[in-house]
Amino acid sequence: MRKIITLLTDFGLKDSYVGAMKGVILSICPDANIIDISHEIRKFDIRQGAYVLASASSFFPERTIHVGVVDPGVGTTRKPIIIEAKKNFYVGPDNGLLTLAALKEGIKRVVHISNRKYMLPRISHTFHGRDIFAPVAAHLANGVPIEEFGPLLEKYETLSFSKPKIYKKRIEGEIIYIDGFGNIVTNIYREIIEKISINEGRTIKITFNDKTEKILKICKAYNEVKEGEFLAIIGSGDFLEISINLGNAAKKLNIKEGTEVVVEQV
Amino acid sequence: MRKIITLLTDFGLKDSYVGAMKGVILSICPDANIIDISHEIRKFDIRQGAYVLASASSFFPERTIHVGVVDPGVGTTRKPIIIEAKKNFYVGPDNGLLTLAALKEGIKRVVHISNRKYMLPRISHTFHGRDIFAPVAAHLANGVPIEEFGPLLEKYETLSFSKPKIYKKRIEGEIIYIDGFGNIVTNIYREIIEKISINEGRTIKITFNDKTEKILKICKAYNEVKEGEFLAIIGSGDFLEISINLGNAAKKLNIKEGTEVVVEQV
Amino acid sequence: MRKIITLLTDFGLKDSYVGAMKGVILSICPDANIIDISHEIRKFDIRQGAYVLASASSFFPERTIHVGVVDPGVGTTRKPIIIEAKKNFYVGPDNGLLTLAALKEGIKRVVHISNRKYMLPRISHTFHGRDIFAPVAAHLANGVPIEEFGPLLEKYETLSFSKPKIYKKRIEGEIIYIDGFGNIVTNIYREIIEKISINEGRTIKITFNDKTEKILKICKAYNEVKEGEFLAIIGSGDFLEISINLGNAAKKLNIKEGTEVVVEQV
Repeated sequence: MRKIITLLTDFGLKDSYVGAMKGVILSICPDANIIDISHEIRKFDIRQGAYVLASASSFFPERTIHVGVVDPGVGTTRKPIIIEAKKNFYVGPDNGLLTLAALKEGIKRVVHISNRKYMLPRISHTFHGRDIFAPVAAHLANGVPIEEFGPLLEKYETLSFSKPKIYKKRIEGEIIYIDGFGNIVTNIYREIIEKISINEGRTIKITFNDKTEKILKICKAYNEVKEGEFLAIIGSGDFLEISINLGNAAKKLNIKEGTEVVVEQV
Repeated sequence: MRKIITLLTDFGLKDSYVGAMKGVILSICPDANIIDISHEIRKFDIRQGAYVLASASSFFPERTIHVGVVDPGVGTTRKPIIIEAKKNFYVGPDNGLLTLAALKEGIKRVVHISNRKYMLPRISHTFHGRDIFAPVAAHLANGVPIEEFGPLLEKYETLSFSKPKIYKKRIEGEIIYIDGFGNIVTNIYREIIEKISINEGRTIKITFNDKTEKILKICKAYNEVKEGEFLAIIGSGDFLEISINLGNAAKKLNIKEGTEVVVEQV
Repeated sequence: MRKIITLLTDFGLKDSYVGAMKGVILSICPDANIIDISHEIRKFDIRQGAYVLASASSFFPERTIHVGVVDPGVGTTRKPIIIEAKKNFYVGPDNGLLTLAALKEGIKRVVHISNRKYMLPRISHTFHGRDIFAPVAAHLANGVPIEEFGPLLEKYETLSFSKPKIYKKRIEGEIIYIDGFGNIVTNIYREIIEKISINEGRTIKITFNDKTEKILKICKAYNEVKEGEFLAIIGSGDFLEISINLGNAAKKLNIKEGTEVVVEQV
């Protein structure tokens, strides 16, 4: 079976950068099956990259090698790492980008990539995606054992989204992602909603940033409400989302990632 | 030979959604060759998706599995279907998205996907691309017979673009697509143009929405006119198009898909 | 080993055009490994396409077939060509798009594609990417010898960026590319900077268009300066670049490709 290497970056699709990484991978592991997860992560936004990676990575087969490059600290002392998680490998900078996904599976070990043998001969200070992460992923796909790449790392950066605070009839959470449809994804997980006995069909009050208020039905499908109307829904990532049927909720409310959100029974 | 599965959606390329679909496919059919047709279809625009799918699908080898997900009715009673056409398979929602392409080939049979065995264990109400269409396409690629997925469907949604009305020296048509270059694609097919004895080299009058008028030469190549000038041309899809040499005709005329167009001999 | 065919176009990712090319390739060479370099080249901008292709192509394994389609002269007398370079093949229009990359390797021979046998049966005047370049690349990947496609071409279009002018303490150059991060790439190569004894760590004065002046340190990594501050750096393509740490230098300075730049010791 061909080894799958996925790529997630903030490089965009105009430049040569993603192409160069794919060329490097195929030069080392001609049989690699390279799959793009996203190259449209907001520039330097590690949290957004971590969220998207964690949303996609679990759907790939075991032993997939996920390469993540959102790397504002490229060329500094932040370490290049490989994470061996229970199911998949993660290759990228030690800045938290990879840990959200890896911790969902459970982390077995983390290696500090330092063996120059598995990097390109000349390493730039600005493009470790091409010079370190791509060749390392390709060698890993070729079967090089993880301990070959460098020493074990005991301490590494983690990144996590704030946990919602749960009160009797009230949840305080945060907007963790806005998707391309304008769906507003909160950090409020399905189980939490159920815990305070809010079910699909019920109506809740959602307050953004102590200002904008919406009384919304928790729907099962978008078009339980009319076109252009707001709804709440447990989305495909099992988080509470606020949406507009056939519309863009985030634009309409002018809501950004990081916004505080309060959910109350009504 | 590796099975080809193509993807066409309105998901955009920022989010994890396309990546998740690819992960699901490769988990079931590791050998699938996944090819993106487009993920930049205008959100919820079934007609635009149908047009782009029908423009690309016929160029793929026989037995390609085309997955289309422009699915404003996700989570409702609209059915998930597989169409077996003369040449290719089409997998997606029963909302007309797939039928424009499938009818070009001729439809052999349509199956209502209902066998849970070929879906993900947990099916969301918001992301059937990942939970139903991706796994079904992968199982189909693995050789599962189409009748395994569910019962035959006699009635299904079709979608077609309005046919141009042909008079002696006049054709009334419609703008069906605006491409990324700003080329304005009409529903007026090459044969129709020839039928009213308008040939390349001839000059025609084109009127948009009863207002904007252009006297244009039907050219063979864009640069038969000077840079920045309008022309008419039979485009690569064999439809009459209005373009600007090295420019963006749709922007210049502020023309949108759906606009009425009248072509007259001059 | 599967043959790699890369694609670089100005088609964008919304339309069916890239998908149609991939379908054509896979119909002829089912085993091709198709890799996108970029489809977001500015419409009709041959120089930008040439730069991006030349930045990525050298990272691919030997005998990769690079297809480039930025083709404002499609349908005219400009010739379709194959370039056999020392390492890779290049397929596309004879307008200079391919030569920047091919000349970096050294050109062995150029063939004027004229054998209709290796094109689609019907050739449009507007989409040679689908009708000529895709099938030719696929047949080449299948092992058809290059001389089969047509006669040798002695004269072909070349494209090169202006060479910087080097004085004792002053270099006059040009902006050749602005990347998605807003990094401003000059045509001033690493060796030239070193030649006039400017090293990393030194400070230089950069003047854009005789107007905007910046006194900048040549850094090794972006965050040798504070967030939001300008720096100079030898980028991943070995050219002198002007950047903002965690910001967009080109937007801030409102600088475009083609701008003149003067570098002086201070």
